[in-house]
Amino acid sequence: MKQIDDATRMLARLPGLGPRSARRIVQHLLTRRDNLLLPLAEELRRLADSLAVCSVCGNWDERSPCSLCVDAKRDRSLLCVVEQIADLWALERSACYRGQYHVLGGVLSALNGIGPDDLRLAKLEQRVQSAEIQEVILATNLTLEGQTTAHYIAARLTRMGVKASRLARGVPIGGELDYMDEGTLSTAIEARQKII
Amino acid sequence: MKQIDDATRMLARLPGLGPRSARRIVQHLLTRRDNLLLPLAEELRRLADSLAVCSVCGNWDERSPCSLCVDAKRDRSLLCVVEQIADLWALERSACYRGQYHVLGGVLSALNGIGPDDLRLAKLEQRVQSAEIQEVILATNLTLEGQTTAHYIAARLTRMGVKASRLARGVPIGGELDYMDEGTLSTAIEARQKII
Repeated sequence: MKQIDDATRMLARLPGLGPRSARRIVQHLLTRRDNLLLPLAEELRRLADSLAVCSVCGNWDERSPCSLCVDAKRDRSLLCVVEQIADLWALERSACYRGQYHVLGGVLSALNGIGPDDLRLAKLEQRVQSAEIQEVILATNLTLEGQTTAHYIAARLTRMGVKASRLARGVPIGGELDYMDEGTLSTAIEARQKII
Repeated sequence: MKQIDDATRMLARLPGLGPRSARRIVQHLLTRRDNLLLPLAEELRRLADSLAVCSVCGNWDERSPCSLCVDAKRDRSLLCVVEQIADLWALERSACYRGQYHVLGGVLSALNGIGPDDLRLAKLEQRVQSAEIQEVILATNLTLEGQTTAHYIAARLTRMGVKASRLARGVPIGGELDYMDEGTLSTAIEARQKII
């Protein structure tokens, strides 16, 4: 049946799914037409309709500015710069950060032809200049491109007289030394901390 | 955002997905609102709308009787009985069978309270009686319940004077003896075949 094949092919393109798992999902959906297939179609449609990108930080929400940007309880002197919205979500799940965010929408990459103008950098400098921000945490990924981007932004912010910081590096919680790469281990040794 | 959480929770209930993979899929969909999220919602909606259960064999299709049942090129003297529509699809993918199908919609199970009246058995006997069917292949799963069901149906068909057969058992193609259970190995030894 063409509809089934089309839906399977489309689902198989989603991250983490392949032809086999997509087929299993379609079969599951088909046996639950009224209480899963239709509601899911409806839910995705609603998601698409309600989606807005925050004009301030770049987060997704139902409105712009987003609920994080208008939350009066969040610290307005701290700004955390992340690559993607997914990173913002990860930090929010950890519930350890109560400042503002700024989503770059990518990283500098000569290989992919992404330069400073392709990121939300102008908006970042505008926010930093106009507002009461005292510190910018550059929480880009610890990849080569993520760190290049962080250094580039840090240099610009320092020229503007804004304090720039980065996340601590080391062995992750639950990490086993045997599975860590040499870079992580040497960083962890160099930045070792006093116990008491 | 409530919409995002709702969609994530719904996707996480699909087979093979969990909260983490569902979130990844939602993030993927959100970054591709117009060329993936909306089309997928539309596709699932279309799938639900076009879905019909074949009144003859129990397959899913756009119409009833389904395209397999009306296909004049398929052998009408052979009928293959399967538990689920997914099994029918698996056989169709192998492209080794060109007869008709009959989907039971389950297996006999005292544990789950499923008796003969809960399966599409009356329809099966009606088909076998009225049509030119000469052999019924009982292709239920090789589980305890699948085989109980096959024996039950075989007994009824034999009483009606219809030939009932089952799939061959043995080591699957690509199978390694080291990973086979004892039941499979003893079956394969007992049913060993002459090479030339």
